[in-house]
Amino acid sequence: MCEANAYIDHEGKEELFMESVDIIKPEAENRLLIMNIFGDQKILHGKIKKISLLNHKILLEKIK
Amino acid sequence: MCEANAYIDHEGKEELFMESVDIIKPEAENRLLIMNIFGDQKILHGKIKKISLLNHKILLEKIK
Repeated sequence: MCEANAYIDHEGKEELFMESVDIIKPEAENRLLIMNIFGDQKILHGKIKKISLLNHKILLEKIK
Repeated sequence: MCEANAYIDHEGKEELFMESVDIIKPEAENRLLIMNIFGDQKILHGKIKKISLLNHKILLEKIK
């Protein structure tokens, strides 16, 4: 399976935001819809920093 | 392998931008660095519309 884990970068420290992510959909300026393979959804007020598919890793940045 | 193909959405018509993508890295406002598993890089003046990891599909939007 090719899902990835999403982490929020806090000044270099990575905090798990969601496991087994399937969908990433920017919905508006600095607003991301993220859905896992089970259909659970989360909204992040933030943006994508980097996605590495081979590493199964999505790095996000929260915007205050 | 968990790479994906990246397409640009042209009013509903999808045009292949890059195959076997590994890395997606927003570098600045509306500027994406996209790298494939062979290390080739492309820059798109645009943004991410939707990523579906299970479908191995990255949908991008070009900004004029």
